[in-house]
Amino acid sequence: MTKLSPLQIERLKYQPKLPKSLQNGVNSLELVEGSATQSVRDQEQIKALFANTYGKPTVTFKTTSSSSSSEVRNVGVILSGGQAPGGHNVIAGLYDSLKNANPANKLYGFLGGPSGIIEGKYVEFDDEFINAYRNTGGFDIIGSGRTKLETEEQFQKSLAVCKSLGISAVVIIGGDDSNTNAALLAEWFVKNNAGIQVIGCPKTIDGDLKNEQIEISFGFDTATKTYAELIGNIQRDANSAKKYWHFIKIMGRSASHVALEAALQTQPNITLISEEVEAKKMSLASIIDYMTDIIVKRSENGKNFGIAVIPEGLIEFIPEMGSMISNLNDIMASLETDSSFVNASANEKFSIVESKLSSENAKVYASLPALIKTQLLADRDPHGNVQVSKIETEKLLIEMISERLSQLKAEGKYSGKFSAQSHFFGYEGRCAFPSNFDADYCYSLGYNAFALISFGLTGYLSSVRNLTQPADEWIAGGIPLTMMMNMEKRHGEMKPVIQKALVKLDGPVFKRLQDNRQDWAMNDRYLFPGAIQYFGPSSVCDITTITLQLERGKTLAAV
Amino acid sequence: MTKLSPLQIERLKYQPKLPKSLQNGVNSLELVEGSATQSVRDQEQIKALFANTYGKPTVTFKTTSSSSSSEVRNVGVILSGGQAPGGHNVIAGLYDSLKNANPANKLYGFLGGPSGIIEGKYVEFDDEFINAYRNTGGFDIIGSGRTKLETEEQFQKSLAVCKSLGISAVVIIGGDDSNTNAALLAEWFVKNNAGIQVIGCPKTIDGDLKNEQIEISFGFDTATKTYAELIGNIQRDANSAKKYWHFIKIMGRSASHVALEAALQTQPNITLISEEVEAKKMSLASIIDYMTDIIVKRSENGKNFGIAVIPEGLIEFIPEMGSMISNLNDIMASLETDSSFVNASANEKFSIVESKLSSENAKVYASLPALIKTQLLADRDPHGNVQVSKIETEKLLIEMISERLSQLKAEGKYSGKFSAQSHFFGYEGRCAFPSNFDADYCYSLGYNAFALISFGLTGYLSSVRNLTQPADEWIAGGIPLTMMMNMEKRHGEMKPVIQKALVKLDGPVFKRLQDNRQDWAMNDRYLFPGAIQYFGPSSVCDITTITLQLERGKTLAAV
Repeated sequence: MTKLSPLQIERLKYQPKLPKSLQNGVNSLELVEGSATQSVRDQEQIKALFANTYGKPTVTFKTTSSSSSSEVRNVGVILSGGQAPGGHNVIAGLYDSLKNANPANKLYGFLGGPSGIIEGKYVEFDDEFINAYRNTGGFDIIGSGRTKLETEEQFQKSLAVCKSLGISAVVIIGGDDSNTNAALLAEWFVKNNAGIQVIGCPKTIDGDLKNEQIEISFGFDTATKTYAELIGNIQRDANSAKKYWHFIKIMGRSASHVALEAALQTQPNITLISEEVEAKKMSLASIIDYMTDIIVKRSENGKNFGIAVIPEGLIEFIPEMGSMISNLNDIMASLETDSSFVNASANEKFSIVESKLSSENAKVYASLPALIKTQLLADRDPHGNVQVSKIETEKLLIEMISERLSQLKAEGKYSGKFSAQSHFFGYEGRCAFPSNFDADYCYSLGYNAFALISFGLTGYLSSVRNLTQPADEWIAGGIPLTMMMNMEKRHGEMKPVIQKALVKLDGPVFKRLQDNRQDWAMNDRYLFPGAIQYFGPSSVCDITTITLQLERGKTLAAV
Repeated sequence: MTKLSPLQIERLKYQPKLPKSLQNGVNSLELVEGSATQSVRDQEQIKALFANTYGKPTVTFKTTSSSSSSEVRNVGVILSGGQAPGGHNVIAGLYDSLKNANPANKLYGFLGGPSGIIEGKYVEFDDEFINAYRNTGGFDIIGSGRTKLETEEQFQKSLAVCKSLGISAVVIIGGDDSNTNAALLAEWFVKNNAGIQVIGCPKTIDGDLKNEQIEISFGFDTATKTYAELIGNIQRDANSAKKYWHFIKIMGRSASHVALEAALQTQPNITLISEEVEAKKMSLASIIDYMTDIIVKRSENGKNFGIAVIPEGLIEFIPEMGSMISNLNDIMASLETDSSFVNASANEKFSIVESKLSSENAKVYASLPALIKTQLLADRDPHGNVQVSKIETEKLLIEMISERLSQLKAEGKYSGKFSAQSHFFGYEGRCAFPSNFDADYCYSLGYNAFALISFGLTGYLSSVRNLTQPADEWIAGGIPLTMMMNMEKRHGEMKPVIQKALVKLDGPVFKRLQDNRQDWAMNDRYLFPGAIQYFGPSSVCDITTITLQLERGKTLAAV
């Protein structure tokens, strides 16, 4: 018998909530078709690439009084990409839905991500297996992986594996890229008369897989609550000790949704948003100025402490840094195999790099602290790019601000004390026990995925909407994956992809920050969200993100 | 109106539990005296230093049927040292107890720690003020500080401030040092016929203020649960992604109780305990060997991932590192003001330092990665010592293990992949919302402190025991502070101090780790404690630490 934590024992008993339409099971559903759809942009190209799956209608479900019987179906499920809280509940919902429809149905889990379907590595789920993972965090139930399903050969192999298991539908749980690949696979299966359906589920803590059709990706709620817990705790500490500035970097490389949501939940003194830095073409110097100005003014008010929240990807969005990093990636390709470089001392390496960079980029590189210069030269990722997550941007800012403050002190313009602590939160939130919201949402997404399968649909994303209302009132249905696509350049080639959602600088969420940040900077408006609660008052346990509430508020007002 | 988080709104309503004896208020209590006490060691010296307060009996309370009236008393309270969850509840319990005894009583809070009583900086509490802080984390209600109350001049000033406010008792909430100073102040007040009592309360997340009389210091429960939440979440991530080793450093400079408790709650692959490293005189090389061995063996089993928990203070407990650091502290005193050193390049600094260290220590210093060499030369603390908390021991270990693994790979003895992430958790836990245990315990400690005051006691520590039982059955009383003292060398002088409790290598808590660590190293026995829960099943909300349970189990078995 595996030893479990007290919370895990109790959470295993939690019965996630479903939308009313799904509560009687999949055999009591009626499909309601909306009107035909088109892709968000580049309609002609997307249509040509998805000749068999393009233009389908959106669908929703409603309950019928009659119950139909259901043919036997075998389904396979894949977890793709980085962990997000609630993945296990998608699988549990899918399993319950499928077994409720017909106990002879089988659910297979492909192991280690998309490579599992190619290599034929799988498990078959049964009650005992599934029950051990209900309402838990992590993707350890079958593991995940980052293999991209996109080549003809991979599709062929996947087909063979599915055929051998009698699988007639595959559910892919993943982010924008994985769902793009789900659309390609769906199209390929139809084109090749494979008789295999493909359904996607929207996953990512980053919150950048959302659009008019998807209100939120799962995991965002739990992850941001976990980061907000930690920021809040640190704020309380800073406000008690009154002696440290805490620079807190938050996961989220390309979009700043996570940092923004965590900031709205905690109201720190400074919040940087990558999208704003890029849009305003803010230089590193201007960011340092902005932060230093707040630090100096707080110090004048007797406050030598504070909290700054920084998105992980910031550095790439600073124009001169982005340009320098891109130049650096190019020159490092040859330097990495150059033994005279590899064996050089740190200082010699800096000089070599500066001599190879363009003069503008060399100046930027030379201006950085040694720690960051070193990190920029560290191991590249498989594409030869610097691993931005390994660059300690929070320390870069601390060091440059310290220098700036020393100058100001020498000029008699600052007399405070700047002592800083740095933090980076990411892994702490990706595998937390899903919040009630994510537990319910994920279970519904999985349950609903089998409803889509049972109506023979393919190339659809499982969609559960109206999420700011109680689960009873959630609307279950499906969205053609092609509807969310457009053409974008990837590795030099135009490809059909699901648009990534960045923080909208004219949207209500960023506006909330913008309207308040001056007040939050100087007056301490810290909020302390505390640990995620799974039991107790609904006001604590069942609330979702501020981002979702503000975005839906806007939509509702616009209707 | 201040904006509050949903959890804060709900937690303000929580009514902490009290021991049965205190439930009818302080006016219905009878004092039960135990036998006279003596200090744990050095009895003659301690007795001589505490002529007026030494040897008093331990006391407990029981309820009487008759209710006595209570004279009017003004009390002052001080928060001393680092934050610990529950400090606000000590003050709330004290306030409620005092107002229940006589509504004309007044409670003053001294601002910014012990300096508040010296400088006469204070607030007077009322219901509205106290109510806003019930069951919240942090010390921001009146702030804290690290001023040591120990000189005649400080005592004189404190006396004057207390007299001006009509204060006849002071409650000092602090760790071992602060309670040592509480004992000194109590003795001084008696000796000088000041008519002012002093009562201490046992605070510290470090868990090193405990002994036969104190089962646990407050804050340890909440802080360790917060760290265990984060370690558990990261373990789930590691076990899902299966590609990273996470090195997690946990706050706790001199004792490893926090790392040990967090490890027992989560069962990571590797846990280092400073006390063991010191006792076994483990060298840095042998620690690297121990960890590398586990990493290699796991890799042979296909597991290129894992979790290592490292206590913050480790580096000082490694004999050769401790010696080198001590030597370094000495030579840095002069180097820090030497401009030729200050203006030297990093590499030059390393050479200068190596030339000044003893040859053995120079070898140790030279063997370290540049990052750590630099951190060892960074700003000293006010005593001229290196700030150990700023040394990234977790990165030191990662870098040295990486090198070791490269060697093994070259020798054909290792073929795995070692990719590591580092974390440091400390500030995240010191100001969390107190767990139900800490909320109840702290409230009881504060409530009980006024009971001790109302019986005219001084030089006592507020004591609440039998803590593994429900709060109803807790035993409230007081322990003479001198009972916990012995003589120790501080800054070259023998001083009376409360003994610090280190991890006992022959105790049941360490034994639990020792008995299991081989299994945990290779087989993944990860536990996922999840976020602290304040509502819901008692099995989740009302459990205390494994440390306390094991230690009390032992005591109970021995009775």
